Amino acid sequence: MSNKRTELNQLGEFGLIKKIAESVVIRQKSTTKGIGDDAASIKPEGEVVISSDMLMEGIHFDLSYMPIHHLGYKAVAVNVSDIAAMNATPTQIIVNIGLSNRFSLEAIEALYEGINAACEQYKVDLVGGDTSSSASGLAISITAVGMASKTKLAYRSGAKKGDILCATGDLGAAYVGLQVLEREKQVFASNPNMQPDLEKYQYIVQKQLKPEARMDVIHELADLNIVPTSMIDISDGLASEILHLQEHSGIGFRIYEDKLPIDKMTYDTAVEFNLDPITCILNGGEDYELLFTIPQDDYEKVKHHPDIHFIGYALDNKEDSHLVTKNQNMVTLKAQGFNHLSKSDM
Amino acid sequence: MSNKRTELNQLGEFGLIKKIAESVVIRQKSTTKGIGDDAASIKPEGEVVISSDMLMEGIHFDLSYMPIHHLGYKAVAVNVSDIAAMNATPTQIIVNIGLSNRFSLEAIEALYEGINAACEQYKVDLVGGDTSSSASGLAISITAVGMASKTKLAYRSGAKKGDILCATGDLGAAYVGLQVLEREKQVFASNPNMQPDLEKYQYIVQKQLKPEARMDVIHELADLNIVPTSMIDISDGLASEILHLQEHSGIGFRIYEDKLPIDKMTYDTAVEFNLDPITCILNGGEDYELLFTIPQDDYEKVKHHPDIHFIGYALDNKEDSHLVTKNQNMVTLKAQGFNHLSKSDM
Repeated sequence: MSNKRTELNQLGEFGLIKKIAESVVIRQKSTTKGIGDDAASIKPEGEVVISSDMLMEGIHFDLSYMPIHHLGYKAVAVNVSDIAAMNATPTQIIVNIGLSNRFSLEAIEALYEGINAACEQYKVDLVGGDTSSSASGLAISITAVGMASKTKLAYRSGAKKGDILCATGDLGAAYVGLQVLEREKQVFASNPNMQPDLEKYQYIVQKQLKPEARMDVIHELADLNIVPTSMIDISDGLASEILHLQEHSGIGFRIYEDKLPIDKMTYDTAVEFNLDPITCILNGGEDYELLFTIPQDDYEKVKHHPDIHFIGYALDNKEDSHLVTKNQNMVTLKAQGFNHLSKSDM
Repeated sequence: MSNKRTELNQLGEFGLIKKIAESVVIRQKSTTKGIGDDAASIKPEGEVVISSDMLMEGIHFDLSYMPIHHLGYKAVAVNVSDIAAMNATPTQIIVNIGLSNRFSLEAIEALYEGINAACEQYKVDLVGGDTSSSASGLAISITAVGMASKTKLAYRSGAKKGDILCATGDLGAAYVGLQVLEREKQVFASNPNMQPDLEKYQYIVQKQLKPEARMDVIHELADLNIVPTSMIDISDGLASEILHLQEHSGIGFRIYEDKLPIDKMTYDTAVEFNLDPITCILNGGEDYELLFTIPQDDYEKVKHHPDIHFIGYALDNKEDSHLVTKNQNMVTLKAQGFNHLSKSDM
């Protein structure tokens, strides 16, 4: 990357927007008007789902270790993940950014490189938004639109007694990856000549810096003709998400410690940091994997899927959800995100 | 209002969201799922339009004179105005806020009071969003969704030679109102015992603090069976908006100084502040009135409308748009918003 720095005010009022608009590719036939009017227009098919998320510098991301193009990618991915969690297909995004004069044109171009890369990955169209000044720091607010036929939508509320609780991928990696990044930041702060030692942590650092929305699983479920009875994405830690399904579906869950999916690197690094790996799975956030329930009749269709894990099942107990430990102890699940009030989705 | 102050962290992670969700009323039958899932779901009728706008403290608003409930109302109104400018009916909004620990629960409740009042005024449903911490200040990002049949949508691009250029309401008031507020802030800063003298400026201060989206005009045009050939809302000043219509429609406009609508209070106060009233109309922002073109055949239907003003017409000149002054001079229109790069819509 070059070290050129162009001040944003050299571009004129609409110069930045023009530059951003030029880099946009429209892929969805449902996009009838993209950037350039008072609003985008969309010709919907079926039900429209819509979700929005704001990321604030100093709270949700730290540019001292987060490359800004990864931030752009991640900001799109986490919104696409919300659309995936409705069992819908993402189609459009709108991006608002507020930025202080600390940011150069080159930084914003790198941010939009990441945004455009995610648009390509998830086949969504960037159709609007605004860029504003900010008194300090960077704020990114992304709204994602998706579509699904009404009968395919998966809410949090449909889990029934006996349904199998499934989780994709592996859990806890993004949280443990964050611990690695924070440690290397401290090391660098105390001795700027030290090179960060990230190579051996590549997978978990990647899960933190550049998570993927599990649209692959959504497409596979559609191919298998499976509609989850309930679904949510795992953004705040497994325990918190199970409690959301419990609250909305009105039933408890039993999960098993020995069924919880964890990568070996996550496990080993958690131990290195004196963290309990199971606590990282239950309360660490930002995995953006999917948690969903399927009827027992659908189990045969997915039982050999390499990336879907059957971690428990739904009870009719309205009281609580719990974890059965390897020693057969029952532990009641509690939500305790690590970041108090750092983010609450409506 | 009581002076009670409840810290946000007393509420617990989901307490704030619960409080907000309890105050929400769902009015639109197109809202099939509101707050409480990974995304809202909407059953659309016709084409869907969607627009999003971010307001940053210290850039777009100043809480030293902007009551926080007015800020909530205005944040919704300016987004509804974008939907109006597509000739569509607003149906849902999503609200993201980022707030520092300077803000108490009572302040956020007042913000949502304003948001809910605007939802009631414009009959839109608050269906989602998130609340986050912010390292400093308040950021509000609102996304508005609307609907219209495809044949009713008004883009910026449809103006044709001979079309009549119309503006609603009066212009320049919000900008001159802002000058009054800024002066009173200075007076108060130099002598906190001085009471602000806003009574005689009530109309223009109100236009700045609590603008309305002109949905009334949108409904009247529908009743009159008029579909504007092009439309935009006046957020950056009349000149800038005319140039947008020019760029997208590929034709110039001629407007007449003596046809430009200005309220007497706006005019007199501009003079008091040594500002040229016409410059305030052309380059002052935040009026949120509508600017649109209609075919000459539709003129008879609206010629007696008290709040629609016929300020000029479309040429086929692709070169430029100009103002004809009272002295019959021709002045080429230039966009020069007062706030350089403070906000650029895509």
